[in-house]
Amino acid sequence: MTGRVKRIFDNLEEDVDLIVLINHIDPLLDQAFFYVTGYETGLFEAGVAFLYPDGKCEAIVSKLEETSARKGNIPLNIPSSREEYEAMIEKGLKGADRIGLHYNELIHSRFKLLEKKAAPNSTFLDCTRAINKARAIKDKDEVERIRCACDISSRVASEIPSFLHDGVREYEVAAEMEYRMKKMGADCVSFSTISSFGKNTAEPHYNAGGLALEKNVFALFDYGATYKRYVSDITRTFFYGRASKEDREMYETVQDAQQIGFDAIEPGKKMCEPHDEVASFIDGTRFKGRFIHSLGHGIGLSVHESFIGFMPNMEDRIEPGMVITVEPGIYLPGHGGVRIEDDILVKKNGIEILTKADKDFLEV
Amino acid sequence: MTGRVKRIFDNLEEDVDLIVLINHIDPLLDQAFFYVTGYETGLFEAGVAFLYPDGKCEAIVSKLEETSARKGNIPLNIPSSREEYEAMIEKGLKGADRIGLHYNELIHSRFKLLEKKAAPNSTFLDCTRAINKARAIKDKDEVERIRCACDISSRVASEIPSFLHDGVREYEVAAEMEYRMKKMGADCVSFSTISSFGKNTAEPHYNAGGLALEKNVFALFDYGATYKRYVSDITRTFFYGRASKEDREMYETVQDAQQIGFDAIEPGKKMCEPHDEVASFIDGTRFKGRFIHSLGHGIGLSVHESFIGFMPNMEDRIEPGMVITVEPGIYLPGHGGVRIEDDILVKKNGIEILTKADKDFLEV
Repeated sequence: MTGRVKRIFDNLEEDVDLIVLINHIDPLLDQAFFYVTGYETGLFEAGVAFLYPDGKCEAIVSKLEETSARKGNIPLNIPSSREEYEAMIEKGLKGADRIGLHYNELIHSRFKLLEKKAAPNSTFLDCTRAINKARAIKDKDEVERIRCACDISSRVASEIPSFLHDGVREYEVAAEMEYRMKKMGADCVSFSTISSFGKNTAEPHYNAGGLALEKNVFALFDYGATYKRYVSDITRTFFYGRASKEDREMYETVQDAQQIGFDAIEPGKKMCEPHDEVASFIDGTRFKGRFIHSLGHGIGLSVHESFIGFMPNMEDRIEPGMVITVEPGIYLPGHGGVRIEDDILVKKNGIEILTKADKDFLEV
Repeated sequence: MTGRVKRIFDNLEEDVDLIVLINHIDPLLDQAFFYVTGYETGLFEAGVAFLYPDGKCEAIVSKLEETSARKGNIPLNIPSSREEYEAMIEKGLKGADRIGLHYNELIHSRFKLLEKKAAPNSTFLDCTRAINKARAIKDKDEVERIRCACDISSRVASEIPSFLHDGVREYEVAAEMEYRMKKMGADCVSFSTISSFGKNTAEPHYNAGGLALEKNVFALFDYGATYKRYVSDITRTFFYGRASKEDREMYETVQDAQQIGFDAIEPGKKMCEPHDEVASFIDGTRFKGRFIHSLGHGIGLSVHESFIGFMPNMEDRIEPGMVITVEPGIYLPGHGGVRIEDDILVKKNGIEILTKADKDFLEV
């Protein structure tokens, strides 16, 4: 993945001699490690990648992932003990005065290890911004993987209504959804599926409890698939039973808000603009103050690549190649919530919606 | 969870004024945050817990998890902006000269934030050992949750043979397994299910690819359930077709090795001893050198609570209340591997095996 390493170095504001990425224990892993190595399978706990300004990369991996790692074309070091592992790190850091790190996905105890193994006069520099800038713009291979992940979750969306019946529990619907994603080839879910009914739909980060479905409530599903490490993230909200005029209005307000969001996305604009437009639209309705999160976040190797997104105060510019969610929501505590979320790819002249599942108001 | 906080402070080797736990973005979360708060649901990105020597605890949580957090009895601070969040951290750190941190699950960029917000003369101390010591000994509520997780994965194990037929793909079997775990009430899987056939069984950290099942190979499944944040971790290996004498011998060697491991576990012994006994047993067979990992690791809120385990050179003592995997394996690259893994609870007079699924050699 020479191109990706080079892109990181091109984005640096200050020169470094090398960049070191180091994983801790699952799930405390540095996704940038997978960005530069491209490894599709394997856990790679304690894995290390040394990146050099010429785009080259060298790795320390465990015997447990040797087979997965051999599929890449990166020179490997495979320690057979903790001592050898530390000696390999020391060797990798040798002669480096200015060492770049990825502060945002680095565990502090691993930092302490690097500090111990580096020469006493070495300086550490945070390369998070440069890494994020590279990761924010997806290359062709990345878009393809995200496209597959989005396709899987979109196909599942159309099946959800068939899982809804009186008395079904939230976690049972989640089980059906995740089962289908796996059968369609997802490596795993990209995060713990949110399957919520009634009042629970008003809590954006609720997971999936044991509530049984009763008539005349919202049912909200926020979920995603991981395909070769890349994720999708989609939300669909249905109405189970017959909706009141108010509930239908709530849904349609969110749907209109999402369209306003889509229309506001354009390369060159500030990333906060789509959020601000959507927020002020919702605040102009009777749901004022009920949109309580950002309009969207980047996705890719992680489901919250929040270094980009349609967020208040985010002044950076929208660029082609970004993949971001667009997910307005309205939440009425004690009653219910509606959220509609799609993943979009920014293109030169607008956007492509990657999650194509239907989202017209549906009473099941 | 006053008792847990007190236990952490009791384990400290040096006094601190308070301990701060801080989450980053999912999945880069500090499981100790959930240990002390006991929160069963919710994501709690950027969540902060301040722990005090008297066992009290105070938290900063996002509006997105307010409902989940209100179920606990911990005083809450809910910021409405990044600035307010940082001000709350600054307030929490005020007057603290000696600040304890959890280096092992703390993201370096969050450390930098704490450093910025603390008084310039404050010192940071690593409390990882004290936190680990507390987490290593499970209390009643923790054991109950692990027991539920183990029960779910054990029940699934007995169904696996029914999923195996000519041509079924690894990921399809994983889908069936995960579906059943969810339907039985698992919140999610505790890690990406390993479902591997034939040669792939020789790679301990393989996930689940697209290989189709053919006759006369090993089929290995390593997986677990998460129940109210606590995990199980189990491995079963089956033979699909008719096994050669050698393959059967390989299986039975692993089975004998596991029994040797079980017999070697006793409170007061060093944690390395069961590993060493198993390793030297396997090295005394024709599979010498083919057991390439540790005998076991702690489990609890994380699937790899590797601060305890049956590992080479681990001199700490086995204690009642520890929950650890026992998972000998033999791996023949290019041919296949066998691993049998159970989760055990150390008791005063021996062990209880929590994963009760059958493990006699089975040709499917």
